[in-house]
Amino acid sequence: MNVIHSIAEMQRIADAHRSEGKRIGVVPTMGYLHRGHTSLIDIVRGSTDIVVTTIFVNPTQFAANEDFTKYPRNIERDTELAAEAGTTYLFVPEAAEMYPTPYHTYVSVEDITTVLEGRIRPTHFRGVTTIVAKLFNIIKPHVAIFGQKDAQQAVVINKMAKDLNFDVQIIVAPIIREPDGLAMSSRNVYLTETERREAPVLLRSLQYAGEAIANGERSAAAIRTSMELLIVESSSGRIDYIAFTDPESLEEIEKFVPGSRALISLAVRFGQTRLIDNTIIAIP
Amino acid sequence: MNVIHSIAEMQRIADAHRSEGKRIGVVPTMGYLHRGHTSLIDIVRGSTDIVVTTIFVNPTQFAANEDFTKYPRNIERDTELAAEAGTTYLFVPEAAEMYPTPYHTYVSVEDITTVLEGRIRPTHFRGVTTIVAKLFNIIKPHVAIFGQKDAQQAVVINKMAKDLNFDVQIIVAPIIREPDGLAMSSRNVYLTETERREAPVLLRSLQYAGEAIANGERSAAAIRTSMELLIVESSSGRIDYIAFTDPESLEEIEKFVPGSRALISLAVRFGQTRLIDNTIIAIP
Repeated sequence: MNVIHSIAEMQRIADAHRSEGKRIGVVPTMGYLHRGHTSLIDIVRGSTDIVVTTIFVNPTQFAANEDFTKYPRNIERDTELAAEAGTTYLFVPEAAEMYPTPYHTYVSVEDITTVLEGRIRPTHFRGVTTIVAKLFNIIKPHVAIFGQKDAQQAVVINKMAKDLNFDVQIIVAPIIREPDGLAMSSRNVYLTETERREAPVLLRSLQYAGEAIANGERSAAAIRTSMELLIVESSSGRIDYIAFTDPESLEEIEKFVPGSRALISLAVRFGQTRLIDNTIIAIP
Repeated sequence: MNVIHSIAEMQRIADAHRSEGKRIGVVPTMGYLHRGHTSLIDIVRGSTDIVVTTIFVNPTQFAANEDFTKYPRNIERDTELAAEAGTTYLFVPEAAEMYPTPYHTYVSVEDITTVLEGRIRPTHFRGVTTIVAKLFNIIKPHVAIFGQKDAQQAVVINKMAKDLNFDVQIIVAPIIREPDGLAMSSRNVYLTETERREAPVLLRSLQYAGEAIANGERSAAAIRTSMELLIVESSSGRIDYIAFTDPESLEEIEKFVPGSRALISLAVRFGQTRLIDNTIIAIP
C-alpha cells in the first residue's frame, strides 16, 4: 500500500491506471476506521483492480457547533487497517491543499437535503457533496462505495453523481453492527459505558417497526409513538427525529402502501453523542 | 466529424480515447457559431488529438426574463462550421437528458459571482458552472477553452475548476472582433442596423480608458465618467455598468497601481440587446 498526500500525484496515478485499463474503486472515509469501513474496502476490492481509501476529516461538513476538532483520529491505526483490508493507495490529503484560501466553490443538492439530517444540520450535505465531487475529480474512480448507515448521505450522493453526470458507479453497502446491534460508527467511542449499553435500543426500535408493519400496522404516526416510548423508557436517549420516508425521494410517508418500500431512520442523542440508524422495509 | 446526442455514448467515446492515450479538448458553446467560436476550435486543435465541440443552449444560465427561448439557433449551419473548423465530435445533448426531472444539483462559486454580471444576473453563473461541470464529467477533457469576451465567466470557471480539482487545463482565448471593433457575439444578430452601427463605441470607450491610463490617469472614477459620456453622447446605448477590477479576484479598483493589471469591463443595452466587452490593461 502506498500513502499519497498530494492531489496532483493522486491524479497522475489515477490517470496512469486508467490508461492501463485498470478499474479504480474509491472508499471515502473520515478515518478512525472500523469494520464498517473495512467491509467497504472488501466489497470494492471484489470488483476493481485498484482500491483507493481516502482519509480526510472534512471541515465543510461540520457546523461550528459540531465535533470537527474532537472527531476521533488515529492515522497510524488507520494505515494498518486500510493496508490489511487490501487498500492499494491510501489518500490522505492536507486540509490546506483541499481548501486553499480563498475557497469559493460548493456542490449543493437541493430538496432532499432539507429534511431529516439536513433539517438539523443545514450545511452538512453541501460539505459532503463538495468533498465527494472533489475526491471524484482527484481519484477518477469507476466505482465509489458508501455505507447505508448514513442513509440520507447515500441518497444525496447518488443524486449528485447522477445529476452532474459523474461516470462513477455508486455502491451502497449494508450497515455493519456490533454483536448487540449497535451500528458501527467512529462516534461510538464518545459513548460512556452506560450510554454504550443503552444504545442498541436504536436497532430494537427499528426492529419493532418492522414487526408492527409485518403485523399489519399501516400508520407511521402509531409506529413512531411506540418507537419513541421504547427509546425514552429504556434509555437516556433524547430523540432528534424518527422519520418514515420514501427511500429515494425522502418524501414523508404517513400510511404505508403495500408493495412500496419505506426508509425508517432516526437520530438520537446520548449525552453529547448523536447516533443515527435506519432500515429499509418492503411493505407487504 | 461525428455528431453525438447521448451522454452515455459521449462518455464511452471519451473513455476509449483516454485509454488510447489521446488528448481531448472541449469547446463548450451555445451554438449559433461565429468566428469567435471557430477560433476556439482552432486553438484547441493545436494542442489535442480529439476536439469535442458542444452545442447546448443551457436553460439554467438564463433567468425567466432573459432570452432563452429566442436565443438564436441554427444547428445545420453550426454543424457545417464546426466540421470545417476541425471538430472531431459535435456533442449536442437534449435538455431532457441534461436536466432530467427532478433535477436538484448545482455547482456554485461564491463571492466572485455577486459582482459585475452576477449583480445583474444573480443565478447566471450558477447555471454556467453547473453545465460546465456536467460537460467536464461527460467529455472528460484534458483541455477546455473559453473566450475572454465573457471575462467574468472565464474567471469563475477557472476558480470552479481549481476549487473542485477538475484535472482540466483551462485556456482563455482572446476576443475576436468585427472589422469595426465590435466583439463577436451570437447576440449581435439582435441589433437593428442603427444599433449595429453604434455598437463599436464599446471598444472605443475601452480604448479611451487604455489611452487615459497610458497618459497617467490613475483614477477609475475619472475614466468611468469619460467613458460614460463617450457612450451616451455617441450612441443610444444605456449603460448597465462600467467596472474596474482586479482580473482574478474581481475586487473593485479605485486607483490604478503601477505594475498591477486591471480588468475594465462593461455591459451596455442597445434596445433589447445587452452587449458586453472588456480589456485587461497592464498599468505602467
